[in-house]
Amino acid sequence: MSGFELLARSGSARRARLELAHGVVETPTFMPVGTAATVKGLQPRELRESGTQILLANAYHLRLRPGRETILAAGGLHRFMAWDGPILTDSGGFQVFSLQDRRTLDPDGVTFKSHLDGSTHRFTPEDTVEFQEAIGVDIAMQLDVCVKLPASGEELAAAVEMTTAWAQRGARARRAIERTHLFAIVQGGLDERLRARSAQELVALDLPGYAIGGLSVGETREEMERMARFTADLLPAEKPRYIMGIGTVADIAVAVDCGIDMFDCVYPTRCGRNARAMTRSGEFNIRNAAYIRDFSPVDPRCSCMVCTTYTRAYLCHLFRAGEMLGPQLLSYHNVALLHGLMAEARAAIERGTWPAWRDALFAELTRSR
Amino acid sequence: MSGFELLARSGSARRARLELAHGVVETPTFMPVGTAATVKGLQPRELRESGTQILLANAYHLRLRPGRETILAAGGLHRFMAWDGPILTDSGGFQVFSLQDRRTLDPDGVTFKSHLDGSTHRFTPEDTVEFQEAIGVDIAMQLDVCVKLPASGEELAAAVEMTTAWAQRGARARRAIERTHLFAIVQGGLDERLRARSAQELVALDLPGYAIGGLSVGETREEMERMARFTADLLPAEKPRYIMGIGTVADIAVAVDCGIDMFDCVYPTRCGRNARAMTRSGEFNIRNAAYIRDFSPVDPRCSCMVCTTYTRAYLCHLFRAGEMLGPQLLSYHNVALLHGLMAEARAAIERGTWPAWRDALFAELTRSR
Repeated sequence: MSGFELLARSGSARRARLELAHGVVETPTFMPVGTAATVKGLQPRELRESGTQILLANAYHLRLRPGRETILAAGGLHRFMAWDGPILTDSGGFQVFSLQDRRTLDPDGVTFKSHLDGSTHRFTPEDTVEFQEAIGVDIAMQLDVCVKLPASGEELAAAVEMTTAWAQRGARARRAIERTHLFAIVQGGLDERLRARSAQELVALDLPGYAIGGLSVGETREEMERMARFTADLLPAEKPRYIMGIGTVADIAVAVDCGIDMFDCVYPTRCGRNARAMTRSGEFNIRNAAYIRDFSPVDPRCSCMVCTTYTRAYLCHLFRAGEMLGPQLLSYHNVALLHGLMAEARAAIERGTWPAWRDALFAELTRSR
Repeated sequence: MSGFELLARSGSARRARLELAHGVVETPTFMPVGTAATVKGLQPRELRESGTQILLANAYHLRLRPGRETILAAGGLHRFMAWDGPILTDSGGFQVFSLQDRRTLDPDGVTFKSHLDGSTHRFTPEDTVEFQEAIGVDIAMQLDVCVKLPASGEELAAAVEMTTAWAQRGARARRAIERTHLFAIVQGGLDERLRARSAQELVALDLPGYAIGGLSVGETREEMERMARFTADLLPAEKPRYIMGIGTVADIAVAVDCGIDMFDCVYPTRCGRNARAMTRSGEFNIRNAAYIRDFSPVDPRCSCMVCTTYTRAYLCHLFRAGEMLGPQLLSYHNVALLHGLMAEARAAIERGTWPAWRDALFAELTRSR
């Protein structure tokens, strides 16, 4: 059903191909985030050119604005935003639970006040799946229960229990199993026993893919890596694995090394809007005086459109002059950089040289720190 | 020298070809404004795709930031901003005189405090030409003396006199006559005798082109048209005519009808950033509720990339969500719309049907008002 084919392994990394309703995704892959049906500052054709295979949107945001009726009237999310490739939507569980005092949880769902206008809304495990299927996305995420860390073991256990129940209910609510693949989300904080229980219960549902949630939320990189690796090893080898909210060069490399296939984060576009340039040898603020007359590309080893067309000096000028083209160009580069690294990672895994490629990358990142 | 060839006339409109160091410009043509070496929100390749043949930058802004040294180190303005087509720079006279209390005028030039950091600078007629030649632009504007209207006849006459003297001095200061064409600027407010004197004195200098300055600064459209037509008729037929600061559909059509060849304005990009959509049948605010589920293109008769890819509903959503892609896409469309209209105007003049084309355009603009 899920059209997931493992092509190669190298070390603990894996190289696979995921067939979805709107196209094929070569993994490992980074997914740029277009929360409100737009990756900030980048057109779909620019995303495609930069190497984007699949992008992410957010069902919480889309349900509130522009809303179900508008997206359906447009003919679905793909047509609404003019992106014809695969789309994954997050359910919005993370956003709803971030609302803190503005939401109440019960066994059947969550009631909350919109961050836009204070109006009251309710999400259930069933209607979350229904909405994502209705707007026609390729991968839908279950409504999960997120807990703010640090949390008591009791709280974490309750969240895991409810996440499993909601995954079951979401799975039963499906009406477009072939077109929209439902992924469940493993929770459990930094507790191995809870992670194991969560994974076991969700894997039993035999869904087309599994995500690792609740990481990259403030824990150390070592804790993140330990839990990501532990959790990934609990997931079925023959299904795609997605770790949520991972987007730095180092974190993605760690995730690939954990045998994870998919990653998303606002990090590259947020950095791009804030003058923070990502490169193979670390990050820097391109507004700094050091770059005023630096006529080299943002990353001399990057072959993206921005690096082959513009200089650091020009981008430095754009940011200093407050020109919107600066955020646009740097967002493009940062996204393209991650896609370029993923392409290199895929090639390294195919050649069986992933461990050496990974070590060289980390050595360079460490050297430049 | 000027490589200006008149190809056709229809009514009082004219169709010509202007050869410049960086390429050929078919006129009438609209020039998007990239004040600080960037047309806000649009990459050079997008400008080219939208139909841009020549763009405008501002020598006042560029001299202050990024400054002469940086642009020269980059290899000139074209390479700095990665636009390989023709560039016209305004001298900055208008900007300097807008500084009011922060500048003092003397017969040899103007001393002013930077709007960026309060530092003191001085522009002379000679160094203004020298700077524009040094950064390698195709068309340089003389340093002129702008007067805020309403002004006394004495003030206006003094400004005309000094503008003539500065044009003479600028012309003598030239060192790259073939590569950088110096245009003089006819001043004189709404006073026909002063306009005639200004034009006569500047035409005597036999420069490669002439601009009409000091209009579109608050006068009525009727006054603007009367002065533009009066002044254009005083200029040599065999040289390009440029009216500064004109950018609405109606104003450009009037200017073409006055036998003027070139126009520039921030209007289409400023409108684009503020949700104001320009069309062949008038303007509208695309944020309005009326467009939430309007899945037609911004202008159904526009064949630009935005109109063939995205809907009003999507742009409405982008603006309502505060997404930067909204200003990007609408700026592109507004610029492309003017280029599309200019292409139609050129074709109408070639066919000898300009008056009918112009009347149909105005009828539609009036109907939709």
